[in-house]
Amino acid sequence: MINWKNLNELSSYQELGKVKPLDLAEAMTGQKGADRVGKYTVDMAEGLTYNYAAKAVDDDILGALAKLAEEAQLAEKFEELYNGAVVNTGEKRLVLHQLTRGQLGNAVEADGTDKRSFYIEQQKRIADFANKVHAGEIANAKGEKFTTVVQIGIGGSDLGPRAMYLALENWAKKTGTFKMNAAFISNVDPDDASAVLGSIDVAHSLFILVSKSGTTLETLTNQAFVMDALKKEGLDPAKHMIAVTSETSPIAHSADFLDAFYMDDYIGGRYSSTSAVGGAVLSLAFGPEVFAAFLDGAAAEDKLSTEKDLLKNPAMLDALIGVYERNILGFPSTAILPYSQALSRFPAHLQQLDMESNGKSVNRFGEPIGYVTGPIIFGEPGTNGQHSFYQLLHQGTDIVPLQFVGFRKSQIQNDVDIQGSTSQQKLCANVAAQIVAFACGKENADLNKNFKGGRPSSIIIGDDLNPKTLGALLAHFENKVMFQGFVWNINSFDQEGVQLGKTLAKAVLAHETEGALTEYSKLLNI
Amino acid sequence: MINWKNLNELSSYQELGKVKPLDLAEAMTGQKGADRVGKYTVDMAEGLTYNYAAKAVDDDILGALAKLAEEAQLAEKFEELYNGAVVNTGEKRLVLHQLTRGQLGNAVEADGTDKRSFYIEQQKRIADFANKVHAGEIANAKGEKFTTVVQIGIGGSDLGPRAMYLALENWAKKTGTFKMNAAFISNVDPDDASAVLGSIDVAHSLFILVSKSGTTLETLTNQAFVMDALKKEGLDPAKHMIAVTSETSPIAHSADFLDAFYMDDYIGGRYSSTSAVGGAVLSLAFGPEVFAAFLDGAAAEDKLSTEKDLLKNPAMLDALIGVYERNILGFPSTAILPYSQALSRFPAHLQQLDMESNGKSVNRFGEPIGYVTGPIIFGEPGTNGQHSFYQLLHQGTDIVPLQFVGFRKSQIQNDVDIQGSTSQQKLCANVAAQIVAFACGKENADLNKNFKGGRPSSIIIGDDLNPKTLGALLAHFENKVMFQGFVWNINSFDQEGVQLGKTLAKAVLAHETEGALTEYSKLLNI
Repeated sequence: MINWKNLNELSSYQELGKVKPLDLAEAMTGQKGADRVGKYTVDMAEGLTYNYAAKAVDDDILGALAKLAEEAQLAEKFEELYNGAVVNTGEKRLVLHQLTRGQLGNAVEADGTDKRSFYIEQQKRIADFANKVHAGEIANAKGEKFTTVVQIGIGGSDLGPRAMYLALENWAKKTGTFKMNAAFISNVDPDDASAVLGSIDVAHSLFILVSKSGTTLETLTNQAFVMDALKKEGLDPAKHMIAVTSETSPIAHSADFLDAFYMDDYIGGRYSSTSAVGGAVLSLAFGPEVFAAFLDGAAAEDKLSTEKDLLKNPAMLDALIGVYERNILGFPSTAILPYSQALSRFPAHLQQLDMESNGKSVNRFGEPIGYVTGPIIFGEPGTNGQHSFYQLLHQGTDIVPLQFVGFRKSQIQNDVDIQGSTSQQKLCANVAAQIVAFACGKENADLNKNFKGGRPSSIIIGDDLNPKTLGALLAHFENKVMFQGFVWNINSFDQEGVQLGKTLAKAVLAHETEGALTEYSKLLNI
Repeated sequence: MINWKNLNELSSYQELGKVKPLDLAEAMTGQKGADRVGKYTVDMAEGLTYNYAAKAVDDDILGALAKLAEEAQLAEKFEELYNGAVVNTGEKRLVLHQLTRGQLGNAVEADGTDKRSFYIEQQKRIADFANKVHAGEIANAKGEKFTTVVQIGIGGSDLGPRAMYLALENWAKKTGTFKMNAAFISNVDPDDASAVLGSIDVAHSLFILVSKSGTTLETLTNQAFVMDALKKEGLDPAKHMIAVTSETSPIAHSADFLDAFYMDDYIGGRYSSTSAVGGAVLSLAFGPEVFAAFLDGAAAEDKLSTEKDLLKNPAMLDALIGVYERNILGFPSTAILPYSQALSRFPAHLQQLDMESNGKSVNRFGEPIGYVTGPIIFGEPGTNGQHSFYQLLHQGTDIVPLQFVGFRKSQIQNDVDIQGSTSQQKLCANVAAQIVAFACGKENADLNKNFKGGRPSSIIIGDDLNPKTLGALLAHFENKVMFQGFVWNINSFDQEGVQLGKTLAKAVLAHETEGALTEYSKLLNI
């Protein structure tokens, strides 16, 4: 029997607040610190490791977190979710993104079909289509091969797929699996579409229109923009465009597209990288086998997330440490810091994933709650960030919990040895150094050069960034966000907060405004 | 006589805390709201406007802020700075970035030269060099024109120049001033340099090595990386590389470079976009005239920042509203939201500018302070952000103050009319709608669809984004950050917080570590 209770109604949460906080700087110094690195670690899928030695936790705090995980029934709630319960209470929908990459529990039927079969069918259809494009069987009007794929989508149809494409682009080039360049058009700003169209060979480009509802303003506008550009070059838009949408959307069965691939209402935009939304562009760019490996990595990580023992479940552990930092220690933001240039847009994706899922003020029943929920998420790749905002992270007046990601090997494996070390070694040395600098600090009589330490971080370490480890990494964060939503008793799967802006923008365009909105519209010459 | 006092020692700050806070949602509703839009606005340079109607201020609060500005002697402190005082107390240096674009006060002499003349001389040398490159007088070994310029630098040598390049790239293409493609190598991750080198025509590329000290680890490593690649193609690196550095650095007078252009110790990295650091790459990419127009815009905005009347000084006003939000209202972060795809990396630059300048815990005399300083800065362009993290901004448990930027016209001026409006109109309608949605909210009996409002924002509005407006925009934020540093009585011009990480990374590479750092090094196979 599942109980959906607010966090502050749980006795284990009250207990957690009474546990003595850790002096992190002291705990991470000397042999004790060395021991923590070996002890506070848990295996993820695909050879990744989640190491939380430099987080402000000890056995007592972890014990209290385990009790919280149990009382909040996190494992049971995840089980409900993957077995097909209506966990998205706001929109009254199932939540099935994990099912796009594997079956964790019972068969899930909805809309009269077995959903796992439906997702596999779409993957096969995409694979078949991509193979034909790569073979030149599906080609432009002159019979020439498509060389570029352009995703038209915004939010979850853009950030996740774009981050995944950038994460694997150089890996694919290195391993010989690179098939087509990908570009992305997202913003309604006409300069976005104009610039992308100006930078590609339109006659050899295949466009993917991605909108679950088929009604997204930006995406439909950019579709028209692209169709206009194709026509100006004497090309037939219907021969250059496919759709990824839900089967019930107005663009699902349209003669405007070469073909259409389907997702459904049970996949939220920000959770859609492993659905057809990510599948079409990634299969076209790198081949279906690469996309399948990416799904395998995500599925393996999902499997680990079903583990009931908190210390063996990296996503649940990461989630609970985050709740401890947010609700007990009172830190309002978290930085994502991947030491991998290929993950340059991964923080932007996690920013949406986390903030759109858990930036809520009411519980899943629509009742107000008396505690804070999702933090601000931001980040840039290291070592770049070190030369930017790390000053504040080290010496600012607020503490920002950190999540590092690092790999032992580079993707391209092209490197130089300068002053006795390779660039990759320098990169890894920097992330190791930062963890300890943040945790331990260093005393200096000149307070301007003093480092207090006590700034918590975790690190996910892997051998290299490839389709499988990327899939595992993505699923880890998706599941972390899900577990935090369970703890906060909120619905992580709707986004009613985006509606008011849409409504008012429509009013502006229809010139049906009053008061301040009319004045702002005048200032902007609308 | 200037008094450098801590914020909490100022009586006007104590008074500010006693002024009744504004009910923003109430104030922005109806005719009152419309009146505020017309009233709470101030002209910036180059036709830009800073509108703060949707900030949580009224005449009483603004009056208190004006007293604070006066007691904190903000105008006088800026005057000290531009007249050449040692404002960077930590490093005992003058702070002269405004002098790269104009002379606001007395002649400033240092290192035995008039610094304004020195900066102008460097601009002329760069202009002359760029013109010769564009004319093919300076060419590769085969006498072929250089087509691409690649900046090798990190932090301030990367983020600012990169953001400015992206901001003007499409404008330059549209106006016929585009001369050369620019690319950027920053991260010590070898995949960064490898990917950039793999994407350009190395034989026709000119590289700019940018490091003030000439000792930045990442930059020297990437220099070696690039030299290696040039040699492998049978090219002479010294014929393909110029340097931007201080005259006293080890790379200033080296046979490794075609030429060298100089900055000095009085320009912090994050303030260096208008120095030779931005000058070389922007003059090569767009021509010296475009760079000169960019400087003119910045100079015009600097001039406005000398205004003593708070309500006529947009940067000072923006700074003080930010201090009110941070120290009185208690908001720990601020989002930068440009409704212009061309400003896609402007928030990343401001993140460094603000967080590295004001993320400090001691005052300018190295004494601890009893109040919070610089906030977390993050942001992405609109409308993209609306489909990402805006959910939390609208309905999350924390309030995040916002800074919008919007332009009436697009840069490329290529647009389509869909459903009665252009994309540019849709873009502008969205930013107008968001301001009002955040400020006023909208009641709904279903609390999941309820918007409390009361979320403050400002907007900078311009006709279009061009070199002059970009310069004004940049200077506005530089001066805002400077004024906030004055209010907080901190040194905004050093960055001691980045040192410990550097020291520990060197220890890792030298295998001179102990405790936790040794264990992390092992995990990362260093």
